[in-house]
Parts: sequence; structure tokens; C-alpha cells
Amino acid sequence: MAESKEKHESGLLAPTSYDKEPPRDPSLIINSKTPFNAEPPVGALAQSFITPTPHFYKRNHGPIPILENEEEYRLTIDGLLPHPIKLTLAQLKSLGKEVVVASLMCAGNRRTEMSRLKAVRGVGWGPAAVGNAVWGGVPLSRVLQLAGVSQGAWETHSGGRHVEFVSVDRCKEEKGGPYRASIPLHMATCPDQEVLLAYEMNGEPLPRDHGCPLRAVVPGVIGARSVKWLDRINILADECQGFFQQLDYKMFPPWVDWDNVNWSSRSSIQDFPVQLAVCSPTSKDSIAPGSKVTVKGYALSGGGRKIERVDVSVDGGATWAEAQRLPQEGTHGRWAWTLWSLSAIVNPPCQIIAKCVDVASNTQPERVETIWNLRGVLNNSWFRVDIEPPKARL
Amino acid sequence: MAESKEKHESGLLAPTSYDKEPPRDPSLIINSKTPFNAEPPVGALAQSFITPTPHFYKRNHGPIPILENEEEYRLTIDGLLPHPIKLTLAQLKSLGKEVVVASLMCAGNRRTEMSRLKAVRGVGWGPAAVGNAVWGGVPLSRVLQLAGVSQGAWETHSGGRHVEFVSVDRCKEEKGGPYRASIPLHMATCPDQEVLLAYEMNGEPLPRDHGCPLRAVVPGVIGARSVKWLDRINILADECQGFFQQLDYKMFPPWVDWDNVNWSSRSSIQDFPVQLAVCSPTSKDSIAPGSKVTVKGYALSGGGRKIERVDVSVDGGATWAEAQRLPQEGTHGRWAWTLWSLSAIVNPPCQIIAKCVDVASNTQPERVETIWNLRGVLNNSWFRVDIEPPKARL
Repeated sequence: MAESKEKHESGLLAPTSYDKEPPRDPSLIINSKTPFNAEPPVGALAQSFITPTPHFYKRNHGPIPILENEEEYRLTIDGLLPHPIKLTLAQLKSLGKEVVVASLMCAGNRRTEMSRLKAVRGVGWGPAAVGNAVWGGVPLSRVLQLAGVSQGAWETHSGGRHVEFVSVDRCKEEKGGPYRASIPLHMATCPDQEVLLAYEMNGEPLPRDHGCPLRAVVPGVIGARSVKWLDRINILADECQGFFQQLDYKMFPPWVDWDNVNWSSRSSIQDFPVQLAVCSPTSKDSIAPGSKVTVKGYALSGGGRKIERVDVSVDGGATWAEAQRLPQEGTHGRWAWTLWSLSAIVNPPCQIIAKCVDVASNTQPERVETIWNLRGVLNNSWFRVDIEPPKARL
Repeated sequence: MAESKEKHESGLLAPTSYDKEPPRDPSLIINSKTPFNAEPPVGALAQSFITPTPHFYKRNHGPIPILENEEEYRLTIDGLLPHPIKLTLAQLKSLGKEVVVASLMCAGNRRTEMSRLKAVRGVGWGPAAVGNAVWGGVPLSRVLQLAGVSQGAWETHSGGRHVEFVSVDRCKEEKGGPYRASIPLHMATCPDQEVLLAYEMNGEPLPRDHGCPLRAVVPGVIGARSVKWLDRINILADECQGFFQQLDYKMFPPWVDWDNVNWSSRSSIQDFPVQLAVCSPTSKDSIAPGSKVTVKGYALSGGGRKIERVDVSVDGGATWAEAQRLPQEGTHGRWAWTLWSLSAIVNPPCQIIAKCVDVASNTQPERVETIWNLRGVLNNSWFRVDIEPPKARL
């Protein structure tokens, strides 16, 4: 078995085959089996403010790492430090647990809709590559302070320093090396940003699919920066030079394609724009004209910007009404999605359209054409659901 | 003269007539004479990264206050404090000067374009109710710390505490009382937010039109919260209850009008969405078909989100090109606008369209119809300029 696994400095094993994958919920829609990328049926998302762990989307780049012995785990903090620091899980936990309710969303959420216009590259995700969980862990700002890296003293917004998270998740894009990504140091050291090193999800120890035993949770930022199965954290003079920071997860205009793309011309994505999906009904539901339906969905924005308003039309945009935003239980709501609901009489065939506005008055683009991009990231165009009446019986 | 002025606690005089107004640049376009509301010709804005003070838009609610004796000035800090604090200008200056390059934009910028679709209420502003200046002053976070109000200890994002700025500017909306507005306490106490109590603009003492001797400068937030002619600062348990926070500067959907508006249903605007204008050419320029023109303008976003890309079309949206973003001299650029430029061959009659994307991939709405609101705030729809060829000579 020695050749099929590699033990990292952290004590985590990175398997080279997919024969030790964890069990998964059978209701998940599998977009890629190896590596395992899956999302729940979108209707499941609107059922609870906190997404049950089995229904939380799974985004992986290789076989799921294995922790054989929790006491063997070490997190290394290195880079621009006088000397590296190693911390056990017990040491991290002794720094004090904080709980943050935060949504994570894959930058590829709703990619499939975008590729209907014109093909894009990437795992085909529907509108459920997003979830909202209760994360428990130690604030990254506190861990960095222990390492001598404190807010203000180290960094201002003019500095370019970053904090890099290195996983043990091997991936082909890194030529078999580990998945890695970074966030600006000022974000990592600011207590208000609430970046966590999480060891709990929804009150349970972090499951294997979600980064056991320790992951980054970066609220308000695309999921790609919330690195799982942490091996080490590096303080860098510049941004992470890994594949997913430099050659992926960047926003290009619609007229750039694979024949003329220049990756260095664009910033890597961190914060994300205002986003929404209708979870129910879906285009698979046929509804009789004159029926009263409850239109339900989620809405969220990046950077801690709360959702100010959700607009719904059940007649293709001719008339609109404001949906009710549901309470965000047990949280200040800055990093969590907003579930919403509206009761309306529908007259199929019709198109339900939903769109939202965040607290900065940012809006969603009306047409996907205007934001099409070669990697199919951050499709946040108005959400449209075509509803048909039941077919007449022959 | 005693009855025409009122001396405030700060030592500032609030005139009741407009006979002591400061001199103004004759090139300004006056949208309202009393109170004086004016903007420069839009073409002037693209000429320099730092807007010269005479060209900076003037937004007032009453006659311009008068400071007769700088040594008499006192800033009072009060509210949820054990006892009020009074500070002279010399005391404030002794706390150390910081310089911030920040754009301020009126929420009503580009209101006139919105009212062309359907009338809105408010001062008619073109696209030049925005400017970018070098502000010198003392960080508000430092002043609050002196008053015993420090980051974290006083506030988390779950708290609703605000910092209220009270002007001596009397206004009819406050029934002759002073203009006032507030920002969240966590924003006021966070050094990264760089909120200033400014006493300098573009290297000179703050001019009368811009808040002499002391004003708030709240980067990344609509201009309405950067209160001028400061009389006092109050720490409040909740948001400011003044007119401009509760009954104005809120974003309503297009289907809400004066007959069904419910002001308490909406949040007051702070952060603002991604915005842009073409400064040159304008629709007044007639251009011969086949001419090479330089399309120039500004772009900015709220909340410290930098501009990632500017897209320009000179054929009504059929084809697009990326404009060059010009260097943001002497600043980290987080709070400053981005000037941009693109050379193109134009073939009038044609429509030039420009739009931009911020670092959070937020986009501007394509059609003003989708964001029309009764107060005409935050019109950030795609900027369109119709260009005609020169008229044939008879």
C-alpha cells in the first residue's frame, strides 16, 4: 500500500486511487465521479437555512485525503516568518473556538446555464454548487497573531502580501502537486473578516469530504480559496503562484476565448457578485394554469454584502413583486445566504424570473450573453424557469 | 446681523441667507443656485486623476457655514460615552495626519438620465457629481480610540451601533435643523476603512464649499455620509434618525412610486455599486465618419472594490474592446476612481456604450428601466453616448 499513498508533513495521507472514498448521499447529482464533484437537487437547498452536511455540494480535485491518527496531525505555518511554526489540533483548539455561519459557493455555480449559450470549459454545475453551514474553528487572525503576524503591523492595503493555504489534495492541474490558493494578508489578519481554520461543520467534526481535520473557511469569497485538508499555511510576499490562482478562476470578457486568452491580464477572483437561484418550482414541474405556487430560492453576495431585495416575476418580466426574505437564524447574516419565498398565481406556459439586489445596490445582469466567459465562472444572470402546463392526456 | 446667523456649539456660524456664499468657478454647471448644487462639465473630469478643487462637485443643503475664528472651533464627541469630549482643531491635528486619495460620489449622480425615462424627484445631476481628491486629516478610528471607543471591544458586525456626524448645515428637510447622517460603528473604528476627519483637500485647508474647517470623508460610501462642517459626532445605539438616513437615499424597486412608498421597508444606502461615465466625446460633439477618437471616462465602485475592466463599444454594442485603465498615481487605489481611455475609429451616426466590472465581478445593469427608482439614486446603467456626423452645409 506504500506506493498508493503519500504521507504529508501534516500527517495526512493523500491516496493516489479512488478506492477509499467516503460514503455519499444517494440523492446527490454527480457532475464528475473521479474526482468526486456533486451537488444536491436544487429543490433541497431551499428547505433549510443551514444546509445539512450530506446535501452540501462536494468539490474535489483528487482522491479524498485520509487522517489515520488525529494526534499525528500538524499544521505548519511558514513563509515570511523568522522560523516555521507547527501546531497540533489540540493546540489550535486551545486558542478558543468561534462559530461562523457562512455560505460557500463554487465559482462554477450555474455554469451549465452559461454553456447552453456557448460551450465553456469546466465541471458542469447546476445552480446547487452552494451551501450554508455552521463552521466551528479558530480565527485565522488569532493563529497568525500567535505566529507574530498581526493586523496593521504587517500589512496595509497597499501591500501585496498574501496568506497561502496548501492542501494535501493532489491534482493534475498542479502536475500531481497539492491544491493551493491564497487570500490577501489584510483579509487574513482582520478579525472582522472572520476567516476561520475550521475543524467543525454543522456541529460535527469536519467530514472527510469537507476537509477533515482542518480547512480554511473564507467568508464572502469564492469557495476555491477555502482550502480543505490543510497541510500548511505560507505567508507570501505576493499572491499564490498555483494553477487555480493564476490560470483559472479569473473573469474574462465575452470576446476572449481559448485562442486569445492572456491569463496574466486579469486579477484572480476573491469577492463575488450578487447571485440568486430559484429552487422551486423547477422546469421539470408542470403546473396547471391558475395554480397558486410558492416560488422559493436562495440569494447571496460576496464580501459580506447582505441581500437587500429579491424581485420575482411569474409572467416573464411583465410584472414584478418583492419576495419575502426569510429570517437568518442564529447569525448576524453577513456571510450567510438569504432564503426567500413568494406565493403567486401562475398561468403556464410562462417564465418565472428572479433577480436580487445586495446592500450595495449591485444588481444581476439581465442576459447571460453579457457575462459569458470561457471558463464559465460567476454566472449570476437573472434566473429564469420555464414552466409548462401538464400535457393533455391522449 | 444677529438674527441672520446662529452660532453653533462648534463655533461655526450657520447663515440663514445666501449673501455670504464663497466664490465659485464660472465653468460649473449649476443644478440649483440656493442651496448651491453644481457639477463641472463632464469633459473636465477625465483630465486629471486628482480633480482640481474648483471642479469638484458642490452639494449643499443650505447657506455655506462660516468659521470666523479657527481657534474657537470645537468638535464635540458625545452619545454612548461616559462623558462628552471636546477637541480643538489643534488637538485633532496633534493626533497625526493621514492622507487618503478617495473619490466621493453623490447618490444622485446621473439622475437626469434616469428621469428621461420617467420623472424622479431630486436635484437634476448629470454624470459629473463625482470627484477624486487627496484628503488630509486624522483617522476617525484614532479619534474614537481617544474617546474610549476602540475596534472590537465596542462592536461586532452583529451590533447595530452607529457613528453619527452632525453638521451645522441647516436644511428644510430637517425643518431647519442640521444635516446629519451616520455610518456603522464597525466601519468607523476599523483602521482599514480609512474613514477620515479631514481638514485638508488637495493639499490646502478645506475650502468653505467642502466643509471648512472639518468634515467626514467616508471612502467607498455615497457622498451623503461624508458630512461637512462638523459640529458634533454622536455614538448611537442605532442608525441616525435624520431625514437623509430614513426618508431619502434608499433604493426602491421600479414599481414603487410616491403613492405606495414605505420608507421603513428599505435599508439606508452606504456602499454603492459599480459605476462609470464617458467624459469624452459627448453627444454635443459631431464627428465625421472614419475619425479616430479617444474615448475617455471614469469608473469606480463602492466598498473599496477596484475596477477590474472597462468595456467600450463604438457601434452600439455589436463589438467591444477593453479600454486602458490609467495609473492611479500615489495611492493604493482602493478608494479612488479609475480613469480610462480607448482610441477607436468611429462611424457616426453611432452609439458609444461603456460599462465596467469591479474586482468582485459586479456588472452594471444594461437598461435603466430595470433600476428606475422614485428618488433617482444610483443610476449605474450602461453609459450611452449618441454621436452624430456634422450636419451637411446647405
